[in-house]
Amino acid sequence: MTREDAWIVTIGDELLRGEILDSNKAFLSERLLRLDLETARHVSVPDDATAIEEVLRDAAARARVVLISGGLGPTRDDITTEVAARAFGRRLLRDPVVLDGIRKFFQSLGREMAENNAKQADFPEDAEVLPNPLGTAPGFMLKAEDALLFFTPGVPRELQRMTDEEILPRIQSRLGRGQVVRAALLRTFGLGESTLDNELRDLAQNEPGVALGFRTQFPDNLVRVVARASSQQEAQQKLRETLVKIHARLGDLVLGEGERPLEQIVGELLREKQLTLAVAESCTGGLLAHRITDVPGSSEYLIQAVVAYANESKLRELGVSPQDLEAHGAVSEPVARQMAEGVRGRAGADLGIATTGVAGPGGGSDEKPVGTLYLALADTQGTRVQRYQLMRERERNKLLASQLALDWIRRRVLGLELGEQSFPRLGAAPGRRR
Amino acid sequence: MTREDAWIVTIGDELLRGEILDSNKAFLSERLLRLDLETARHVSVPDDATAIEEVLRDAAARARVVLISGGLGPTRDDITTEVAARAFGRRLLRDPVVLDGIRKFFQSLGREMAENNAKQADFPEDAEVLPNPLGTAPGFMLKAEDALLFFTPGVPRELQRMTDEEILPRIQSRLGRGQVVRAALLRTFGLGESTLDNELRDLAQNEPGVALGFRTQFPDNLVRVVARASSQQEAQQKLRETLVKIHARLGDLVLGEGERPLEQIVGELLREKQLTLAVAESCTGGLLAHRITDVPGSSEYLIQAVVAYANESKLRELGVSPQDLEAHGAVSEPVARQMAEGVRGRAGADLGIATTGVAGPGGGSDEKPVGTLYLALADTQGTRVQRYQLMRERERNKLLASQLALDWIRRRVLGLELGEQSFPRLGAAPGRRR
Repeated sequence: MTREDAWIVTIGDELLRGEILDSNKAFLSERLLRLDLETARHVSVPDDATAIEEVLRDAAARARVVLISGGLGPTRDDITTEVAARAFGRRLLRDPVVLDGIRKFFQSLGREMAENNAKQADFPEDAEVLPNPLGTAPGFMLKAEDALLFFTPGVPRELQRMTDEEILPRIQSRLGRGQVVRAALLRTFGLGESTLDNELRDLAQNEPGVALGFRTQFPDNLVRVVARASSQQEAQQKLRETLVKIHARLGDLVLGEGERPLEQIVGELLREKQLTLAVAESCTGGLLAHRITDVPGSSEYLIQAVVAYANESKLRELGVSPQDLEAHGAVSEPVARQMAEGVRGRAGADLGIATTGVAGPGGGSDEKPVGTLYLALADTQGTRVQRYQLMRERERNKLLASQLALDWIRRRVLGLELGEQSFPRLGAAPGRRR
Repeated sequence: MTREDAWIVTIGDELLRGEILDSNKAFLSERLLRLDLETARHVSVPDDATAIEEVLRDAAARARVVLISGGLGPTRDDITTEVAARAFGRRLLRDPVVLDGIRKFFQSLGREMAENNAKQADFPEDAEVLPNPLGTAPGFMLKAEDALLFFTPGVPRELQRMTDEEILPRIQSRLGRGQVVRAALLRTFGLGESTLDNELRDLAQNEPGVALGFRTQFPDNLVRVVARASSQQEAQQKLRETLVKIHARLGDLVLGEGERPLEQIVGELLREKQLTLAVAESCTGGLLAHRITDVPGSSEYLIQAVVAYANESKLRELGVSPQDLEAHGAVSEPVARQMAEGVRGRAGADLGIATTGVAGPGGGSDEKPVGTLYLALADTQGTRVQRYQLMRERERNKLLASQLALDWIRRRVLGLELGEQSFPRLGAAPGRRR
């Protein structure tokens, strides 16, 4: 049987009791794809020696790379290291340098190391220690039955850093197939996953060594680009060329490279251009402000947000005209316009953005069904308002409306067109391209 | 070998590429625990016939219950049903009633059924069809090698409903061990998981047939109570008695029964008492309003929220005194008090709640380190202000501060004491009890 690329094994009673959501497996599989390695199996087992030993043996017999996380802590339940040693017939050796490091870590906190922490310095014979800069439990790499096994703690922060800094480079250098791999991630907003796939597929088909992958992070879609070649330089060049082509096709639907969310991209733009922002929310109900303030340092550009949920609040706090509110309703072009202009004026901000709509499930009508949204942006150039028809679910409507609002700010700051860009719908991705 | 209680198998290329986070496994394991069944293994495999067949056979040979999800859709990739039939030597039969139902579903949308949807009416011989009220793919139950296998679509909404309505009752009636199981969930806020465990452990130890489980949903902790007995009535009584004891010990730290989040509990209380609310946020940055407005119908009680991020916004929008702001700083007792009173007065609301603090990572000082929070609640009885010391992470600080604010509203509406209740810290749960 040919070996499978990779297995991922996570260990811990809490996983099998459904007490925590295991996000490590998705993270690790995505990272492996960047090295062009497919995960053949995810397995989770409890803190049970027999179960752990069985799955480690299976994995080592069948996969080229095995990533194992969990069970490296100091408690009696944490038995992964000793079981791994037994499974592959190794002795367990205490590493004096690691032990000293753990002792010093506790000293730095003004505490004595507990005796049970000492076992975190035990490793199977011939294992290579993988440093853990964020915790007391180092990981280790073991070669057994022609497989490379990497053991890490289950804490996502620690696991993620160790994967990027210690594990992926080792896999790359040992399993390189004589090839170098380079990867990048593009965040896009405005096209559905299947449309993206259709639009870009030929780029990978016509270019040997280039692979594309797609991941939805509602309402965004992420495009992963992987380039393989025989040298670093060549792989890098292939990657760059593909990215240039994707940018040319998708244009301003690409929000940025890497994992940074839109609120961070917008924050960086506002900071760079030294622009201030005021927000008036109705249907997004505070979510827009919440996302903006999730970015550290957002107090530099956000002056204030007003969630004017009641009609009288729109009149009093934002200066909406009672006649327009009466004649057109709260979900309307003039009210959206006046909300944006009102909050901008009161706050003395450079930009004023406003949302008003029917989030659902109640409140819809034939004329303004659930999902109706008016978005308005006011600045020195005037005010732009646009009506959108979103979806049926309250939470998704709030999220999508906040995303459109942030995207409008991005577009305005960058001098791009706004108001007509398409946006993802449930299961379909209509509309305008470039 | 004695059989393990349960295995959970999820199927789909997207899982093994890390494109989506697989939340089904945690959900299913938690649900099985309510029937006192422990999950021995989680396995995920791609849409590959060999891999699926192998894992189905393994699972059926080793577990009493196997829950399988994914691969029941209409596309060519969806092969779970045919592989299951082959794995256990069954023919594949088309169910005319199900086929008719699918056809009618499409008619109701004004569309013709595509031919590939017909295969969703195929089932292994002797399978029992499990209705899916939310989608076109029904599930099915198969008995093979003394195991009960349940197949469902991978769409969480559909899977969850089918699990509760179709699968759990069947497991209960077939694996009852002559016993009936009743379960409940309590949402608590204010004690850490290990403290909860210490407080309640003896309830399960001293009562045969009662088991407790804990799950963290930051910043809440959920307590699962499972009661087993030989009759429905006895199990129900055992469950109720245990719940009464837990309520007596934890008192007002129990937010409610079931999955309802605190914002929904608070919304129901405000509605019931016909009270209106106004919100003034600084450090929570809109999250408090966002959580309140996540509840459908929240416009009935939320009048407005003001996110006064800049100092001048606190003066202008909330009537904070410039002298106090200057003398005490934005994160202070008088400013919190004036924010709550200001927003309540302007909105003409029954309750005014305010948050001001240092969310981090910047902005901390010796006197007011990152995590400092002032919470204020104003109503007809006056204004209450309290200082808290939260943690170091921005996102968790925002979330915990919004939770404390919602809990204050709950307490005030219920006539409970506020201001001194404890709250979870990272890894420790200090403080006051009852």
